[in-house]
Amino acid sequence: MAGYVSDAVIRRLPGYYRHLRELEAAGVTSISSQELGKRMQLTPSQIRQDINCFGGFGRQGYGYNVSELKGHIGEILGLDRLHRMIILGAGSIGTAVAHYPTFSREGFKTIAMFDVATDKIGTRMNDIPVLPMEELEKFLSENHVDIAVLALPAAYAQETMNRLYEGGVRAVWNFAPTDLNHPEDMIAVNVHLSDSLQILSYRIAHRGE
Amino acid sequence: MAGYVSDAVIRRLPGYYRHLRELEAAGVTSISSQELGKRMQLTPSQIRQDINCFGGFGRQGYGYNVSELKGHIGEILGLDRLHRMIILGAGSIGTAVAHYPTFSREGFKTIAMFDVATDKIGTRMNDIPVLPMEELEKFLSENHVDIAVLALPAAYAQETMNRLYEGGVRAVWNFAPTDLNHPEDMIAVNVHLSDSLQILSYRIAHRGE
Repeated sequence: MAGYVSDAVIRRLPGYYRHLRELEAAGVTSISSQELGKRMQLTPSQIRQDINCFGGFGRQGYGYNVSELKGHIGEILGLDRLHRMIILGAGSIGTAVAHYPTFSREGFKTIAMFDVATDKIGTRMNDIPVLPMEELEKFLSENHVDIAVLALPAAYAQETMNRLYEGGVRAVWNFAPTDLNHPEDMIAVNVHLSDSLQILSYRIAHRGE
Repeated sequence: MAGYVSDAVIRRLPGYYRHLRELEAAGVTSISSQELGKRMQLTPSQIRQDINCFGGFGRQGYGYNVSELKGHIGEILGLDRLHRMIILGAGSIGTAVAHYPTFSREGFKTIAMFDVATDKIGTRMNDIPVLPMEELEKFLSENHVDIAVLALPAAYAQETMNRLYEGGVRAVWNFAPTDLNHPEDMIAVNVHLSDSLQILSYRIAHRGE
């Protein structure tokens, strides 16, 4: 990447990747900043600025090569690497993550799920084994894990995150509706579903203001 | 609300609500901007600014009344109203939304789910009936729906959103991994799970930079 990249640009990266993947699938080989901006509801100059920021893909007047740009943004996002994931909690959120169709295509491979429910332990979900939560430490000592998905009730999330940290995991994707305390060298990204629904509710309540 | 509220403040509102709910549940009746800032990883002055922006709850030196502030923010978020929801798609994401424990407590009541799979139609999920997708128009003509949850493959999302709009629905919570085109009077909030996981992957790839 060319120097400092702002959080706002980082947040837009997956959107670029998604639109370029859709364009590639539709057989589009080249796209102008005008056309891409229209799709993404950004101005052409914003598009050019962002793409320059990703590392100088500027070829104004000719359009951007869709596959090349997609590949480049995929690398920046780390999608050219394999990420080994585990899912903590085999409830409905954990199950949804285990079945999500695009994750494995993008290099996110779930190698195990953990739960405390005896009727789930020993089964497989989308071919992923469900192991007893008490075997977490043993599993982490024998397997390298890049990302742990927290799909547990809020009350168990912090304690489980601490166990993951002790076991060497340094990145957590948290679905529990709580903010976790974590050491600085632990990366945590939250998906707070309730927050998102409340933003929708806010927009409904303040419609037309 | 006191005048213009920025998008950044709106995005923080659910976080305030969540922390205040946790504090209330823990029996805390009053909290200072220092303590709340520490929990939320914001500066005390940011907290005071935000809360002034919500409508002048400033009582510096005494701390904020937790229940009062939570109630006030809940009203701003529209959580004092009942929202009638339907879920399009009874796959793993739709199922997770149907079972999410806090939505009904916050006034989001799912009244029906729709799917095309004959083995799902006629069943109930968390006591919510699963209806055939072809009955969507009939259902919308007979029932008021505030929010439609799109939990469908990307390929069906746009077409379904058009049908919802035709049927009078004006707010969509979209889990399909695609950006929808919608008229200006349709509110759409996206949960792009893949984008969130890619942000985590970005942070792993650029750790320590």
